Amino acid sequence: MTLKELCSIHGPSGSEWRIKKILLNYIQKNCSTWAVKPVVLSEGIKDNLILVFGKPRTVIFCHYDTTGFTVRYNNRIIPIGSPAYDENTILRSVTAEHSGKTYRIRKEEEQDYSLISKTITEAGTTLSFDCKFIENKTRFTGPYIDNRAGVWVSLKLAETLRNGMIVFTAYEEHGGGSVEFLAPYIYNKYHIQQALICDMTWESECVKQGKGMVVSLRDKYIPRETYLRQITGILNKNNVLFQKEVEGSGASDGGYLQKSAVPFDWCFCGAAVTGMHSSAESVHLKDLESLQKALLILMENLK
Amino acid sequence: MTLKELCSIHGPSGSEWRIKKILLNYIQKNCSTWAVKPVVLSEGIKDNLILVFGKPRTVIFCHYDTTGFTVRYNNRIIPIGSPAYDENTILRSVTAEHSGKTYRIRKEEEQDYSLISKTITEAGTTLSFDCKFIENKTRFTGPYIDNRAGVWVSLKLAETLRNGMIVFTAYEEHGGGSVEFLAPYIYNKYHIQQALICDMTWESECVKQGKGMVVSLRDKYIPRETYLRQITGILNKNNVLFQKEVEGSGASDGGYLQKSAVPFDWCFCGAAVTGMHSSAESVHLKDLESLQKALLILMENLK
Amino acid sequence: MTLKELCSIHGPSGSEWRIKKILLNYIQKNCSTWAVKPVVLSEGIKDNLILVFGKPRTVIFCHYDTTGFTVRYNNRIIPIGSPAYDENTILRSVTAEHSGKTYRIRKEEEQDYSLISKTITEAGTTLSFDCKFIENKTRFTGPYIDNRAGVWVSLKLAETLRNGMIVFTAYEEHGGGSVEFLAPYIYNKYHIQQALICDMTWESECVKQGKGMVVSLRDKYIPRETYLRQITGILNKNNVLFQKEVEGSGASDGGYLQKSAVPFDWCFCGAAVTGMHSSAESVHLKDLESLQKALLILMENLK
Repeated sequence: MTLKELCSIHGPSGSEWRIKKILLNYIQKNCSTWAVKPVVLSEGIKDNLILVFGKPRTVIFCHYDTTGFTVRYNNRIIPIGSPAYDENTILRSVTAEHSGKTYRIRKEEEQDYSLISKTITEAGTTLSFDCKFIENKTRFTGPYIDNRAGVWVSLKLAETLRNGMIVFTAYEEHGGGSVEFLAPYIYNKYHIQQALICDMTWESECVKQGKGMVVSLRDKYIPRETYLRQITGILNKNNVLFQKEVEGSGASDGGYLQKSAVPFDWCFCGAAVTGMHSSAESVHLKDLESLQKALLILMENLK
Repeated sequence: MTLKELCSIHGPSGSEWRIKKILLNYIQKNCSTWAVKPVVLSEGIKDNLILVFGKPRTVIFCHYDTTGFTVRYNNRIIPIGSPAYDENTILRSVTAEHSGKTYRIRKEEEQDYSLISKTITEAGTTLSFDCKFIENKTRFTGPYIDNRAGVWVSLKLAETLRNGMIVFTAYEEHGGGSVEFLAPYIYNKYHIQQALICDMTWESECVKQGKGMVVSLRDKYIPRETYLRQITGILNKNNVLFQKEVEGSGASDGGYLQKSAVPFDWCFCGAAVTGMHSSAESVHLKDLESLQKALLILMENLK
Repeated sequence: MTLKELCSIHGPSGSEWRIKKILLNYIQKNCSTWAVKPVVLSEGIKDNLILVFGKPRTVIFCHYDTTGFTVRYNNRIIPIGSPAYDENTILRSVTAEHSGKTYRIRKEEEQDYSLISKTITEAGTTLSFDCKFIENKTRFTGPYIDNRAGVWVSLKLAETLRNGMIVFTAYEEHGGGSVEFLAPYIYNKYHIQQALICDMTWESECVKQGKGMVVSLRDKYIPRETYLRQITGILNKNNVLFQKEVEGSGASDGGYLQKSAVPFDWCFCGAAVTGMHSSAESVHLKDLESLQKALLILMENLK
């Protein structure tokens, strides 16, 4: 599956059933060629999806929901998660019956936008950014790289992973509600206590695109120092080029894990994106390669 | 039990023991005349109360705490939850020893009110709105319709419910702390994964009083699209008149369920109230009837 | 172990491994002289530490993490928890390799401070206040009395406690993430449902230093009225001098317990501190004595 295909699938928080169905189908068709055929868990866990490889010691959490919009009354829209948008943004509505209808949006008041349309779109309809992609040898630009690029990396990783778990999660962009029950489920069933978060982050003064994958030493939440040292120790020992990130804000599935009902260590591993949460996020392909390599090394070396 | 009686019981978040005791007593006296006699669970779950009917597949969560006030030092008061009040509001103090003493309140500074009284009320005393009710054939007005009207509807429903669970919850108005442990308890003991939230909402541009019960497609939190479709599908198939609500803010026990340690689908079903959280909330009786009917149909038809 | 020694141990949220190691060592060396030798649980619960005495009915939660700082890029610092600091503050950096290097800090912009230094400190390094203590017969002043004084009281209490549990917790100052999994662990393993929070609070118009321990009737969160009555009833019956606190803000491990996945009653018991979260917190030794006495009486009398 290409990154472009993955980014094109409508899946704002709450509406992840499509991406789940498509991934399930892809995995069933392709996993016989993988190094290890995973056990696939998909029932009774809402719109999440779990792949278990061999004897897992570490879990990769990789959210596959995106930001988006819900139609309120009279074509007004309200955000799902925190999308970045303005008057030039074009949205695409998706309902059970049809998809692909696009709308330009208009600013009504401060932080209050509506669809420009002569007909009233049904309240509750969900929308996502209209997809325009720009690709070249080094860079990929378009909506929902956060976190479909993480999904892409995880699916690549799945081809060679021998022992570990990959969990595709829902609701990350909109306040969570998946990791909170997935963590106890995994902890109780597999006795796993350590996690890596495979997700996108932003460029900053010391985190640059094309300079390799990013290990976050903290964001709004703070991982355990002893676990961070294991992570950076393994990466250093294996000569993986990585960038250390330190932020005071921002959060990921790691934050939900931190507050969950079971003891889980976690560390955010990602790639830097520009235009975060806009319809034109951009990522350096080298950073995704680096992320994939680093995750595989960590999954193999974390005891 | 009348709606007026239910609304009169002092029970701000943290002080739900009275309403629990009164409901327990009512249920024990009356449940022998119900279609199915429920199993009553009340021990070890703090001030919550669970009724189990037949073989439950779906849970109704119905909070019975209210907003209120705590006396701080020197007759200053601080809110419990988010009550709506001003200088004309009359409050009633309730302690273990006595109840019914009323006070007018005075504004000291911005968002800082105190009891007008020559004596100092003991710090920690809880207060609720003094109860004045106005009833006619179509409408009921007074404090704490949110959510004692939900309790009233649930108790009516209990008379005919064959399979299902009704859970009366504490702490909903003040940041939660009940559903977070009740959901795992119910999930583990009864293997239930789907919930309806029976609660009050507000009138808005497209949700009107007298127009039937309200199904919320989202508020601050977003239920799962596939579950919402089941709900609206069942209501449509059974010709239940309902209003679709879409809000970007506000939350209910559904939000606590969303963040709980077990996978639970949830959907808010309610009636529209005016004067939300004030001493003069008002509800249309037809909407409560509609809510009761819809909940019964959903409990019977959700597989 | 002296209060001064305890306050000197570097342990901001996320970096509690040092204090855990030091306490474990202290307990192993000293517990043979205690009234009851506790079972020590320290594995698989991250940087937390549990002592089980006899047949426990009640748990004391006592956080041992502190506020602090993380170095970001180019010597900028970001807070861990909510430390109180300004341009005169002196910080001490601690890494795996060395400790004790001190820095004065400089204000760059509003709420943006940096270390004054000619060399760049590595991103991710953690810092805490440089320790200056002032002690006399009645009072102790210095950083991290919150909550190392709570730890000191708990360790004293441990010498005579016959039945109960003392849990030293991590991450309290920075959004939690310990009590959330410790509570289910304790509830499931020991069937305990009641807790006391041993922590520091602030002086206010009706809570004064030197006037005895403090029982909080509420802060941001509200404990259950029936549990509070048990607590105050036992203290009154045993002629313990205590002060009732009522606040609308502030939270403790009690708040995390309130939102946990198991039903736990909780009540905050503390001592009043001035200069909260600054490098010069100050506490009255009489209040710590009073706190220790009250906690012991509560542990013995709560059924």
